[in-house]
Amino acid sequence: MQLVAVGHVESALTDPAAAPKQGTEGAPPATVVLDPEYADAARDLRVGDRIVLLTWLDRARRDVRVVHPRDDPAAPERGVFATRSADRPNPLGLHEVTVVAVDGLRIGVDALEAVDGTPVVDVKIAI
Amino acid sequence: MQLVAVGHVESALTDPAAAPKQGTEGAPPATVVLDPEYADAARDLRVGDRIVLLTWLDRARRDVRVVHPRDDPAAPERGVFATRSADRPNPLGLHEVTVVAVDGLRIGVDALEAVDGTPVVDVKIAI
Repeated sequence: MQLVAVGHVESALTDPAAAPKQGTEGAPPATVVLDPEYADAARDLRVGDRIVLLTWLDRARRDVRVVHPRDDPAAPERGVFATRSADRPNPLGLHEVTVVAVDGLRIGVDALEAVDGTPVVDVKIAI
Repeated sequence: MQLVAVGHVESALTDPAAAPKQGTEGAPPATVVLDPEYADAARDLRVGDRIVLLTWLDRARRDVRVVHPRDDPAAPERGVFATRSADRPNPLGLHEVTVVAVDGLRIGVDALEAVDGTPVVDVKIAI
């Protein structure tokens, strides 16, 4: 099961430790830059669309099984499958966002907590 | 970017062509069977939890860039990133479900359109 990057995130966020934990928590707008190979796949994305981005959180730890939720040492540890921790066996990020600009293969989105350079592996219409 | 299976789907659904297109469209209950290696990751899943399952739709086509939505030949073709087609560069399935049973590593869910044997690659709490 080999993922391919279909694009990457361009963002002012560069430090994962400083990034918001969820897009709704003060994340900045960002741009998803899709690779030309996927131009046809992206051709019907429109401003106003609500979409789900799947990213590969390449700075996360894959060997972590339990975490203190929200990095709060006072919070009891929980198994990562009962959290939204980036650290997990397959560090897939899941982000529901709104398209705010489309310029060829550059898709602007309203609020994204992924850092600059994060690989994008899928785009779906939200349901 | 290499995914590992953390478990698989057990379901009465065996034929992808006959499976509902979304979990809300008459999909049956199913069981997610997690691998023992991930017991700690799964330890806090509880009946009633709303979770997001990510699956690897291993029967999908990765070379498809445009589809007739809902397999309707009368529907205009759309780029797969503006659809929920299983056929896409990385055939990740996204399923929001409710946990209805927990028996060790066997997690019962209310309605799942993935077919029997589908690899599960991630479990997250829904937000």
